[in-house]
Amino acid sequence: MAIILGDNQYGKAESRLVRFVRDGPRHEIRDVNVTTALRGPFEPAYLHGDQSAVLPTDTQKNTAFAFAKSKGLEAVEDFGLELARHFVDDVGPVTGARIEIEQYEWQRAVVDGEEHDHTWLRKGQEVRTAAVTVDETGEYVVGGLKDLVLLKSTGSEFAGFLKDEFTTLPETHDRVMATALDAKWRFASTDVDWEATYADVKRLMVREFATLQSLALQQTLWHMGTAVLEAIPSIVEMRLTAPNKHHFAYDLSPFGLDNPGEVFWAADRPYGLIEATVLRDDAPPANDAWRASAGLA
Amino acid sequence: MAIILGDNQYGKAESRLVRFVRDGPRHEIRDVNVTTALRGPFEPAYLHGDQSAVLPTDTQKNTAFAFAKSKGLEAVEDFGLELARHFVDDVGPVTGARIEIEQYEWQRAVVDGEEHDHTWLRKGQEVRTAAVTVDETGEYVVGGLKDLVLLKSTGSEFAGFLKDEFTTLPETHDRVMATALDAKWRFASTDVDWEATYADVKRLMVREFATLQSLALQQTLWHMGTAVLEAIPSIVEMRLTAPNKHHFAYDLSPFGLDNPGEVFWAADRPYGLIEATVLRDDAPPANDAWRASAGLA
Amino acid sequence: MAIILGDNQYGKAESRLVRFVRDGPRHEIRDVNVTTALRGPFEPAYLHGDQSAVLPTDTQKNTAFAFAKSKGLEAVEDFGLELARHFVDDVGPVTGARIEIEQYEWQRAVVDGEEHDHTWLRKGQEVRTAAVTVDETGEYVVGGLKDLVLLKSTGSEFAGFLKDEFTTLPETHDRVMATALDAKWRFASTDVDWEATYADVKRLMVREFATLQSLALQQTLWHMGTAVLEAIPSIVEMRLTAPNKHHFAYDLSPFGLDNPGEVFWAADRPYGLIEATVLRDDAPPANDAWRASAGLA
Amino acid sequence: MAIILGDNQYGKAESRLVRFVRDGPRHEIRDVNVTTALRGPFEPAYLHGDQSAVLPTDTQKNTAFAFAKSKGLEAVEDFGLELARHFVDDVGPVTGARIEIEQYEWQRAVVDGEEHDHTWLRKGQEVRTAAVTVDETGEYVVGGLKDLVLLKSTGSEFAGFLKDEFTTLPETHDRVMATALDAKWRFASTDVDWEATYADVKRLMVREFATLQSLALQQTLWHMGTAVLEAIPSIVEMRLTAPNKHHFAYDLSPFGLDNPGEVFWAADRPYGLIEATVLRDDAPPANDAWRASAGLA
Repeated sequence: MAIILGDNQYGKAESRLVRFVRDGPRHEIRDVNVTTALRGPFEPAYLHGDQSAVLPTDTQKNTAFAFAKSKGLEAVEDFGLELARHFVDDVGPVTGARIEIEQYEWQRAVVDGEEHDHTWLRKGQEVRTAAVTVDETGEYVVGGLKDLVLLKSTGSEFAGFLKDEFTTLPETHDRVMATALDAKWRFASTDVDWEATYADVKRLMVREFATLQSLALQQTLWHMGTAVLEAIPSIVEMRLTAPNKHHFAYDLSPFGLDNPGEVFWAADRPYGLIEATVLRDDAPPANDAWRASAGLA
Repeated sequence: MAIILGDNQYGKAESRLVRFVRDGPRHEIRDVNVTTALRGPFEPAYLHGDQSAVLPTDTQKNTAFAFAKSKGLEAVEDFGLELARHFVDDVGPVTGARIEIEQYEWQRAVVDGEEHDHTWLRKGQEVRTAAVTVDETGEYVVGGLKDLVLLKSTGSEFAGFLKDEFTTLPETHDRVMATALDAKWRFASTDVDWEATYADVKRLMVREFATLQSLALQQTLWHMGTAVLEAIPSIVEMRLTAPNKHHFAYDLSPFGLDNPGEVFWAADRPYGLIEATVLRDDAPPANDAWRASAGLA
Repeated sequence: MAIILGDNQYGKAESRLVRFVRDGPRHEIRDVNVTTALRGPFEPAYLHGDQSAVLPTDTQKNTAFAFAKSKGLEAVEDFGLELARHFVDDVGPVTGARIEIEQYEWQRAVVDGEEHDHTWLRKGQEVRTAAVTVDETGEYVVGGLKDLVLLKSTGSEFAGFLKDEFTTLPETHDRVMATALDAKWRFASTDVDWEATYADVKRLMVREFATLQSLALQQTLWHMGTAVLEAIPSIVEMRLTAPNKHHFAYDLSPFGLDNPGEVFWAADRPYGLIEATVLRDDAPPANDAWRASAGLA
Repeated sequence: MAIILGDNQYGKAESRLVRFVRDGPRHEIRDVNVTTALRGPFEPAYLHGDQSAVLPTDTQKNTAFAFAKSKGLEAVEDFGLELARHFVDDVGPVTGARIEIEQYEWQRAVVDGEEHDHTWLRKGQEVRTAAVTVDETGEYVVGGLKDLVLLKSTGSEFAGFLKDEFTTLPETHDRVMATALDAKWRFASTDVDWEATYADVKRLMVREFATLQSLALQQTLWHMGTAVLEAIPSIVEMRLTAPNKHHFAYDLSPFGLDNPGEVFWAADRPYGLIEATVLRDDAPPANDAWRASAGLA
């Protein structure tokens, strides 16, 4: 028996990079959080402390900032591809690169009814995500979002479920359903209009959440996933992770009050957690990068 | 010398309460976090463990949920006044009550171009706040917001400052200015259109942030405060707390690139912190509740 | 009526500073978070953007790091006094300075049964705090700690409380009591053995929490405060803020199990919140800095 | 082409459960956070909203609390196995169960030099973790810890690394090394003394961190992993994730001060991130549960 080094990668996490375009009076903003990781023949660094093949994480950070200037920063998927290709193609020992990016949205300040040229407010809570992997086997792009907080005050049921000796939950045909959605979607190619696709995916998921008379959060997720896959050919698989953020109707009967779905306590923990994958049956096999980015077990 | 009990209060913090109005197909939502605290002759609880004058914090929580049903929940300032008056007027020993409320905003989901009747997305990051105190001396309302994240890519300078032997900062006439604004405003009466006032205060502060050529964050705060006080007679004092969320231009010169205000590193800590009060010179004296809610030293 | 500038201060928040002493093979560590704020005649910065009296917050940060070297960093109270005195005495326009410091504790790694010379593990969750104010009226030191998480599995009751129409809470004579204590204590002088005093205060508060058969969290706080004031003459006032971290006995009766104080659900929110001040009746009046640091209303 | 349901699971996350043993005056405490997830033929819930095979997440929570009473709660690995076996064996449709547990450590309060019988303080920041999977293929246990914060003030170098056109980092032969270690270890059997093993793994990792003259964080991780695998036969694979929590020597030269490794700025972001797996070359293949719990790509 010997002890060996298995999978490994190293990089610089969470470089908070803001890129403005200032070509005229109306500026543009891109606000991102960049994490890079490199793979390759790095055993000597582990076994003997030999760094001769190791590009410092500080250099990876410098590269991200330099590329934001020299290449520009439009779609985060493209920016991730630029960085990953550079590390694999231009840095001798590197055989694989993985770039993860979070993007934070801003909306222009409105002053006297007009959008302002160079002032913004942070918009919403949701974070757009991209995970790009480039290695000997190809290029892989995963789009996504997290913390998209959705709530509906009716149109959700939970009944007819399995019961055992530990079951005390009553059935309900009208409850609040709320979640902070985390979704990842896998592309089959890199020839994609990333910006339009992101907007479409979000719009479709919100529509399904709103309009389905939901018999279970599982059913809502399935409808979200199929709506996206049916509409967007470039996406071959979706991974949806949805906490069931419980809203409990508060018992007002001790005070002589009824509560027909009006007053709720929003609980923190515990919460239900539904995780599901929806995919095309002819999807190409996923690589490990997808499984990792999707948090799959 | 004797040891005595000084200022004290007790209550229930952070009841997460969601109130829907479901009078027709188009529902309304109010999502708040309610903290109540009571003051009065509670020495026996401290000195002897005698609870006979102590209304449990659990009861305070029940009261908040019951009032959300029986009184409704429109402006958080009104809801706070209802609760505070109840505790002072109806619960024998209580002489003072302080209610603090945070409100989280939602926007209706848009489905096929139409606002949806009963589905929402969490909106923005900013939190609306209200602090209401009722005691023997009167009724005091403090409106506010926190975590209003603002950024401008130009129109901000910092130069001509005092220098000593520890000063290394270069002067600049074009920098990024960003903050997560925390603002509190004190009303001189309770006869106020709370909803319209909140919208006005926010609009005015955003306008000043955007349009002032800022020589210092201090100057921006002053303009925000005076704009509000000039426009809204019912507000007599404002307290503004603004972290200077530093964005450092990344040094790209080692890579042969210039960086004319385009690529920045958004730092976490440390950060500048500016705290200022702007008030009318004929404002009635503030009570301790204002000082506490404003975080004043 | 005119609009005027009221209380204000500015500074650099949260400089994360680590100081080692490396005089021999056995190193020492001090790990702190330093926030500085200056007060003085800064109206021109607000009204006209005139920075000529404004020492940059960047310089304040530099000063903290330089002093960590030149003055050393032993007790945080002394370090705060050094910084505050410097700003008031040496920087022309400054009339008052407020320094707030958090300190994080480390314990030496134990290797083969011996304490290691230069390796540590972060210890506990509690944070030691100090707030120092120096101005024309004198020097004020407030010691403290926060997030000292304490729990007892018995020896706590809550009964005999006031009941109204919203009261549903049952009485109990044996419950879990848990808190994350936040305590501040005001010194009457600066001639204090800060390190020994901190250890004494913590030891006394833990002792009272453990040994008192508690009829209410209020009573426990009173005992904590009086134990400290009786034992430590240099402390004249304490401010205690204690969330009542509710542990609810889980109802196992539907499953045919009893639960004699054995299985609990630890809830997040809401929580009770008890705030109390205990002081000597001959304590000198507190200045605003105390009230602010103690969070007093 | 058809759209199909892929991997999925559902459960109750983060049940905060505290279990006391009160057999005599000296009580014992176990403080855990339990997450359960079930797998099986749940397609009808997704496709048609049919819940007849779905055991509610509320029931899963009830089961965890009931088992804490009826089975007791000693080693978290054993508790996870009890729960997982129950769901797979006793709940008809369930074919796989995954239980994740975090454990928070407490230390007894010391009062007058003696350990107290029923009062504790939260101890340290590190969290012990366990992930148990039971399915048709067998039983899998992964031990772990996270947020073990370690720092050494010397004995760490970084030099001889690869340089490209974006490299500006200077080499160093004496730096601070700090991390918040996240480690997972895979067992080849369930016949293990879990408590002793946990203590051994932690002790060995701390020893390697402290005593190795580190040429890279990679090398330190390798030494940690091999030390554990050499000493503990029941562990076949380790996954180590270590942020490089950068401590930058503060430049005091503008102030005429040198800084021989004494004064540092502890940065938040970005940070290096090293991820590595160390395993026996004859380890049985890992199942997906290991890959997911280890966060492997």
